[in-house]
Amino acid sequence: MSSVTNHNIPEKTIERLSEYRRSLLSCHKQGITHIFSHVLAGMHGITAVQVRRDLMLIGFSSDTKKGYDVKVLIDFINNILDSENVMNVAIIGMGHLGQAITNYFNGKRRKLRIVTAFDVDPAKTGREIDGIPCYHMDEFESVVEQMDVSIAIISSPTRVAPSLVVPIINAGIKGVLNFTSAPLNFPQGIVAENYDMTTILEKVAYFVKERDEVGEKN
Amino acid sequence: MSSVTNHNIPEKTIERLSEYRRSLLSCHKQGITHIFSHVLAGMHGITAVQVRRDLMLIGFSSDTKKGYDVKVLIDFINNILDSENVMNVAIIGMGHLGQAITNYFNGKRRKLRIVTAFDVDPAKTGREIDGIPCYHMDEFESVVEQMDVSIAIISSPTRVAPSLVVPIINAGIKGVLNFTSAPLNFPQGIVAENYDMTTILEKVAYFVKERDEVGEKN
Repeated sequence: MSSVTNHNIPEKTIERLSEYRRSLLSCHKQGITHIFSHVLAGMHGITAVQVRRDLMLIGFSSDTKKGYDVKVLIDFINNILDSENVMNVAIIGMGHLGQAITNYFNGKRRKLRIVTAFDVDPAKTGREIDGIPCYHMDEFESVVEQMDVSIAIISSPTRVAPSLVVPIINAGIKGVLNFTSAPLNFPQGIVAENYDMTTILEKVAYFVKERDEVGEKN
Repeated sequence: MSSVTNHNIPEKTIERLSEYRRSLLSCHKQGITHIFSHVLAGMHGITAVQVRRDLMLIGFSSDTKKGYDVKVLIDFINNILDSENVMNVAIIGMGHLGQAITNYFNGKRRKLRIVTAFDVDPAKTGREIDGIPCYHMDEFESVVEQMDVSIAIISSPTRVAPSLVVPIINAGIKGVLNFTSAPLNFPQGIVAENYDMTTILEKVAYFVKERDEVGEKN
């Protein structure tokens, strides 16, 4: 197993490729066949130089007179981001956040699919929620194996999160996206991303405050 | 108004300060009075050098023999991140995601408070949801003014998001956190953060795929 830092494409570029693809898919749906780097950049509030640098990094070049061919670029990004086979995802914690993620995500990506959910609330387990079967956490290991799940999304209450680390390791999960406030550490072989929504809200609040203060001084 | 890039503290440091504070508050609750930089670093899966660099950037220094004084460091970070007065936040879109954010966030930060929500669904408007009054979007401008809201969180369906830009500008909102898949551009005076959860899931999936491929080659 190599560590994430060994990869050639920076994390931030991967994030932007995912974002470009969503915009390109939306353009494609609207019948737009070509797009200039500055237009794509404008949609994401970044510079055209950034877009061109990201696409150069993945080895994409295009006829610049007409802009990028939308369909060709989508396929190119698909080849970078998507695995050959569908990757199965499980949600741990089927409260509001778990259901929001499921509703929001499913049907959008061909190669990434939320196939199962876990909870401990008897009102939620043993039935389907929004078309996803929801099991008790006691069955985590066996269901993960049976359904060939490789990624777990943690949307449980924060206090529960630390107790999920061992079951996740034991079940052979390869990637974790943790939405709780408890930062979780996993062994090197598991790709883990801690994503606490509070952080981003506090960041926005900080920059609002800073601007107010700068505004008052001027 | 200055642009975000004029600030002295990098965005990533602001994010980490928010994360450190959550861990420090949890330590404080458990009666821990001092913490070493490498312990704090370990909780977040980063290096002690990174922690020390971040704290140096905000001008915090401490007795290194006993580690950082937890309470003093919390207060120090409070002074950096929090505004003097409470900042009021509104949620636009009170579906699963809006309710998850509200439940998750409220009561956690003294200086940042979700005070109101907006929706267009008659089943949601005109009543309180989890203690938060939910109004129809038609009342957005007047309620924002009346409740002195400075930050809006967009958790509406993606297709609705572009139509929210003008009301948000007109209402004098200063900061926006957009959780939909539609990247939104706002005038320079408004701090805006587009945060699509799909991006982070696609990133985790990409690095899982990459590791598998590296693993196969080795």
